[in-house]
Amino acid sequence: MNRKELSQLINKKRSFLCIGLDTDIELIPKHLLKHKDPVFEFNKAIIDATISMAVAYKPNLAFYEGMGISGWQSLERTMEYLHQFKGEIFTIADAKRGDIGNTSKMYAKTFFQWLNFDAVTVAPYMGRDSVTPFLEYEGKWVILLGLTSNKGSEDFQFLETPQGRLYEQVIRKAQDWGSADQLMFVVGATHPEEFKNIRQLAPDNFYLVPGVGAQGGDLEKICANGLNSECGLLVNSSRNIIYASNGADFVDNAAKAALKVRDTMDKILQHVSV
Amino acid sequence: MNRKELSQLINKKRSFLCIGLDTDIELIPKHLLKHKDPVFEFNKAIIDATISMAVAYKPNLAFYEGMGISGWQSLERTMEYLHQFKGEIFTIADAKRGDIGNTSKMYAKTFFQWLNFDAVTVAPYMGRDSVTPFLEYEGKWVILLGLTSNKGSEDFQFLETPQGRLYEQVIRKAQDWGSADQLMFVVGATHPEEFKNIRQLAPDNFYLVPGVGAQGGDLEKICANGLNSECGLLVNSSRNIIYASNGADFVDNAAKAALKVRDTMDKILQHVSV
Repeated sequence: MNRKELSQLINKKRSFLCIGLDTDIELIPKHLLKHKDPVFEFNKAIIDATISMAVAYKPNLAFYEGMGISGWQSLERTMEYLHQFKGEIFTIADAKRGDIGNTSKMYAKTFFQWLNFDAVTVAPYMGRDSVTPFLEYEGKWVILLGLTSNKGSEDFQFLETPQGRLYEQVIRKAQDWGSADQLMFVVGATHPEEFKNIRQLAPDNFYLVPGVGAQGGDLEKICANGLNSECGLLVNSSRNIIYASNGADFVDNAAKAALKVRDTMDKILQHVSV
Repeated sequence: MNRKELSQLINKKRSFLCIGLDTDIELIPKHLLKHKDPVFEFNKAIIDATISMAVAYKPNLAFYEGMGISGWQSLERTMEYLHQFKGEIFTIADAKRGDIGNTSKMYAKTFFQWLNFDAVTVAPYMGRDSVTPFLEYEGKWVILLGLTSNKGSEDFQFLETPQGRLYEQVIRKAQDWGSADQLMFVVGATHPEEFKNIRQLAPDNFYLVPGVGAQGGDLEKICANGLNSECGLLVNSSRNIIYASNGADFVDNAAKAALKVRDTMDKILQHVSV
């Protein structure tokens, strides 16, 4: 899915919601455990309940890896299911990979060939050759960590360098490696005061914004400075939607939680030219 | 394996060689393809041929992930095989993971519970809470990226900050999070001139040193400044050993290549008090 198509999808769905599939077998409703693949059944139910309100789904790789082989099988099934909705959704592997060139090439193969995601999150610490193997895939996206949502973002990302703070330099420099048609940045919702500056650093790039909800980020504050004329934001919510309830009513409650976010997003989008 | 045991193992084997199992099904000898799991058969043969000369094995996760489910099965089998040599080797998951706390917790579960590695490589960009969940495992190790061996290390790791260069600040700050009994650093062999400085930054920590051989690093130059009284180095070689030949004689050639490195290491160790 290219940038124009993503922007059109946002306009059609009146939503820039990304739902994080941080699926933990210990947190899903107990009645699903009777299924052969409870994790996939949970994901499928969440996807079915929310697909009209979400533009993107973001499986968090750690949760699948942590379950061993069966976790990877659940992820594979989830991706096969999501591929049925081609053109209606954007898929993100939240993997935060990144290694020397010949190794990043193998990671790119995992996410873009085997699992056929639209995008993968990548860590910037190792620089250009850790990122470019992902950019070589036509029509695929790298979402590079810029300013993350966690407390630890303060340890290194705000360090002053001769080119500004480290996260600013990451966002600036990475634009030499790929265009706004293949490169997004992760910018956490827990730093709303930074969004004005960040939007100026990369006017045309989409940002993936985690940290709304459970981590305390405020959607309206972020949009006030983060939107651009194509929307330019994918705002992620994981736990607040997928674990809105852990009872028999989890589907309805996930749908209600997604609808609430979508309605807020619809209002916000009325003020921009998307 | 604790630090004392690792140091004793180095002394016993007269080697601080780590062999990188970057096993690529397209590069292994063709005659292995007749096996049900050629990747495992290759790893097993390499391990058997080199175990008297290596103190550590380091599967590179990307290579297994890139093969899909069967790759994870090959890795699982390789780890089961390596566990038979408990006390004789140290195992490293070269995964370069790192995410917000509740996600890093799941990655730690993958590598320390499911696969039961001794150590995992972790990326520092997201700061303290991306690293500490790995440090909570008694007797396990984090190997944090400090100065990497690739060209892209120049993009951000050398940036000057008020606390020195970024990689220096990573090495300095991380020592507040864990002791030298649970924390090592990755320092690439392609930066031998930095080793004197780096050894001073973290006098007691072990360093995992990739980049000798295929990437151009020089073992003796690194040891001149990088050794400490417990050795303090694990020097990795991947391609130069495991792909020393891709014919029927690959086992003998891998053993010869490992022996050559071990002999050099033995000579180097005679000059230190290990």
